[in-house]
Amino acid sequence: MPGFEQTIIPFLTRAEKFYPEKEIVTRTNDRIHRYSYSEAVERISQLANALQYAGVSRRDRLGTFSFNHFRHFEIYFGVPGIGAQYHTINPFLPDKHIEHIVKDAEDKWIFIDPSLLEKLERALSTETASSIERFVVMGDSIPETSLDPVIDYESLIGGHPTHYEWPQLDENLPASMCYTSGTTGMPKGVEYTHKMMWSHSMACLTPQGYGVDDSDTIMSGVPMFHVNSNDSPFFGAAAGAKQVLVGESPDPKDYVSLIQEEDVTLSFAVPTICLGIIEYIEENDLDLPSFERIQMGADSVSQNLIRRFEDQGIEVLHGWGMTEALPLCTASRPKPKMNDWDQPRKLNKKTKIGVPLPGVETKVVNNDGNEVPWDGESFGELYVRGPWITTEYFNRPAENEASFKGKWLKTGDIVTVDEEGYFDLIDRNKYLIKSGGEWISSMQLEKAIESHDHVITAGVIGVPDAKWGERPVAYIVCDSDRRGKQISDSLRNQISAEFPDWWTPDEFIYVNNLPETATGKIDKEELENRYQQR
Amino acid sequence: MPGFEQTIIPFLTRAEKFYPEKEIVTRTNDRIHRYSYSEAVERISQLANALQYAGVSRRDRLGTFSFNHFRHFEIYFGVPGIGAQYHTINPFLPDKHIEHIVKDAEDKWIFIDPSLLEKLERALSTETASSIERFVVMGDSIPETSLDPVIDYESLIGGHPTHYEWPQLDENLPASMCYTSGTTGMPKGVEYTHKMMWSHSMACLTPQGYGVDDSDTIMSGVPMFHVNSNDSPFFGAAAGAKQVLVGESPDPKDYVSLIQEEDVTLSFAVPTICLGIIEYIEENDLDLPSFERIQMGADSVSQNLIRRFEDQGIEVLHGWGMTEALPLCTASRPKPKMNDWDQPRKLNKKTKIGVPLPGVETKVVNNDGNEVPWDGESFGELYVRGPWITTEYFNRPAENEASFKGKWLKTGDIVTVDEEGYFDLIDRNKYLIKSGGEWISSMQLEKAIESHDHVITAGVIGVPDAKWGERPVAYIVCDSDRRGKQISDSLRNQISAEFPDWWTPDEFIYVNNLPETATGKIDKEELENRYQQR
Repeated sequence: MPGFEQTIIPFLTRAEKFYPEKEIVTRTNDRIHRYSYSEAVERISQLANALQYAGVSRRDRLGTFSFNHFRHFEIYFGVPGIGAQYHTINPFLPDKHIEHIVKDAEDKWIFIDPSLLEKLERALSTETASSIERFVVMGDSIPETSLDPVIDYESLIGGHPTHYEWPQLDENLPASMCYTSGTTGMPKGVEYTHKMMWSHSMACLTPQGYGVDDSDTIMSGVPMFHVNSNDSPFFGAAAGAKQVLVGESPDPKDYVSLIQEEDVTLSFAVPTICLGIIEYIEENDLDLPSFERIQMGADSVSQNLIRRFEDQGIEVLHGWGMTEALPLCTASRPKPKMNDWDQPRKLNKKTKIGVPLPGVETKVVNNDGNEVPWDGESFGELYVRGPWITTEYFNRPAENEASFKGKWLKTGDIVTVDEEGYFDLIDRNKYLIKSGGEWISSMQLEKAIESHDHVITAGVIGVPDAKWGERPVAYIVCDSDRRGKQISDSLRNQISAEFPDWWTPDEFIYVNNLPETATGKIDKEELENRYQQR
Repeated sequence: MPGFEQTIIPFLTRAEKFYPEKEIVTRTNDRIHRYSYSEAVERISQLANALQYAGVSRRDRLGTFSFNHFRHFEIYFGVPGIGAQYHTINPFLPDKHIEHIVKDAEDKWIFIDPSLLEKLERALSTETASSIERFVVMGDSIPETSLDPVIDYESLIGGHPTHYEWPQLDENLPASMCYTSGTTGMPKGVEYTHKMMWSHSMACLTPQGYGVDDSDTIMSGVPMFHVNSNDSPFFGAAAGAKQVLVGESPDPKDYVSLIQEEDVTLSFAVPTICLGIIEYIEENDLDLPSFERIQMGADSVSQNLIRRFEDQGIEVLHGWGMTEALPLCTASRPKPKMNDWDQPRKLNKKTKIGVPLPGVETKVVNNDGNEVPWDGESFGELYVRGPWITTEYFNRPAENEASFKGKWLKTGDIVTVDEEGYFDLIDRNKYLIKSGGEWISSMQLEKAIESHDHVITAGVIGVPDAKWGERPVAYIVCDSDRRGKQISDSLRNQISAEFPDWWTPDEFIYVNNLPETATGKIDKEELENRYQQR
């Protein structure tokens, strides 16, 4: 077959050769760490040599339990570069999920941040911990720990040659893996081959993706333990872009300081983090001339949030992806013919998740298996397929059938399609509420409730009902102690003005906060449990 | 293996679904033909159905002998879409090369423009012509012809269903093929698989490629019989861009009218065509507000030509590719750090062929097999590899060894590398002149001679010399009858000011025109023949 394999190391070596002085900047607890691609590649080569020396071989899996920093960045390239596979473990998962993931992946090594040692000690059973050949602590020294055997990262790579002869790899080798956050059942692994990451990275570079080139400075607000931090280490290197790694638990001030001081042009994050960033910018009346654009994903995005960024001259891209499909599959860039639309009409388009990127195929299928009309009202499940979208789960042959149809990924996301082909996310399939034979969207109810002046956040669930099958119930966090009848009444008015009568939740329950999943979404399973146990 | 195949039909169906009204516009002999992606897909589906109905099957090869127009565009998708392969035949090749190509490819069918019937009748031997199962004439009617059996394109597709269920194809199926122009020996075929075309198209979309999105209108100045017209039908559809097809033998006025009337934003062509376009714009003092950028490839580009475009507000991208590597592998976009350089320094960078696109690997190797230093002076052969660069010739196992080293394509192009990593094309390997043990670049001499006020074009060849091995001789076309000693003297002065003494050609030979190859380059083999036969 003519043509060369699609692997990720050429992205890195392009940056090394043609942008050697461009920086990778990390916010650590006490300082800013910075080095160049040239220096990064020397250390990545040392890591590759060290791995090989230590007997790590092709297809071995090494876990990472770590935030966004330069050592994690080095693992992203060094491990797949020798033909092995890294896989990230979300430290915010419940202990039992972490234990499950480490066992499921059959990790040979685990790379771990010093601050997460206690968490992992707690999460792993003695048996699982003892199956790990080596724990590599990614700090300058090793705190006391029961994990064993343990070595620090600098000792691991120190002394090894700073050049490594990258082998020609099969593009279908798995390079990395990420586990779904597993709100129902145990997390499932999604393997990303070199080719999938290559394809997704190229698509991210295109103008209908993030539109990245060597003039960009990229700061990912997505953790490196989640969907490869949107693959930004890869497409950032491919473009020769400067990269900013946000370190552990950044707050809005940290994000904004990095944007200011490192001249960030592009970022991406979940809406909650974006909200923190724009609030900080507004409160401090800041001007961020370098900051051109931000992408929000994973969740619904309000017009208000988009408008606040755009008022600051920061372009907002709403995009959609998922662990199974890598982070960017659709994006809501307005089409050229919308250029002269007025702002509200454009904003409405931007709140949607948009159209597929070049290379992705989509269809929206209703319960009868037919594609839905593009009327902005009929809804169905979004199916996607493409070179960076998985066609199977790791180690779960029995669960593939429910999630895939042929090579199509059944996303579980329910969308409408408007006449220009823009998808609008209505709900996750499993959170749709069926009441008296009619569907109610929990997500649309949440959006409506959250648009109330005194509501901070809301979670709507369906609860069993003898007469109607299911009825909606809303859990609400308010910004003050104004709970109760007064707010419920105005919410009822608001909802009945916007939706059919039967959409109005039977109960409005006021709480101080809502449970969250490990990826920062509202944990609806936990809300259902709480409701049952009342 | 998780992940879906990389094939080209999803590019088309994305345009069909999300940009159904965007146009494909063709300049024909007597009018402008226009239709939408939606209509194009209906006809492409008809073609696919017709091919299948007629018994064309996977891996069958169908030749095209045709200029840039909508029917050729339909073949680009319809033929690979069913798993067969189209391959283009350059009508400007000598008859014996055309005969060779048709035999080598074992064409089952040939699609042919009415205006090229006579040419093909002449080129094909009776035996070869009779091996073709069907000639499809791409006009509204069939002129008298000896080719047999013959059918017209509209009759072929007419009546077939306008929907076709595109099969899932293996991405490694060959989708198309292009033959090298074969200045030495017979043309060699280079097959492009779906995956190679997918990869190249995605790279073309990126900002470091052409940077294409749905706001673009693309007019390729590269023939569809040459390297897939730079793959523009594919990446244009992928982006949802409007496309303009220039028809047969466009002159500068045709190009410029299309740019004006169709609001073209992006074009690409060889420097000769670009020169015609800019001259026409200047002479007629035209303003082309839509026309943002033009890419020049395949040849050396003068600072003067770049400046003339930029004076009109049209950005110039100099890029490099070849039949074996698809058209875009490197590009000369200035890096951000060059933003504040003065214009001459920037222009100097832009005349180079630049740095590799994301996804491409390069090295520059001297005769000892070592990579050359980045000093702007040492030169070596450019090696490239990447997902859209071939690793073998079609049907020529014996010739692979000379052209490939492992998976690296030895391009035969000699370049220097400056300290920022920009490649500068010095010469084709085979045109370098070795004189007294030292190398002389025929291309640099040509550039120097062409910068003389009265010189239009020049071709420098090496001729055998008893004492020095080889000596340079220059063939020159002047803009008036001022030939002879006066110009030769000033050229000698100019050359000796710029290069070592021994670079000055032994002879300056004035001619009315220079022979050209089928792809519009100076035919140096023919110059060598002429010199020998003097």
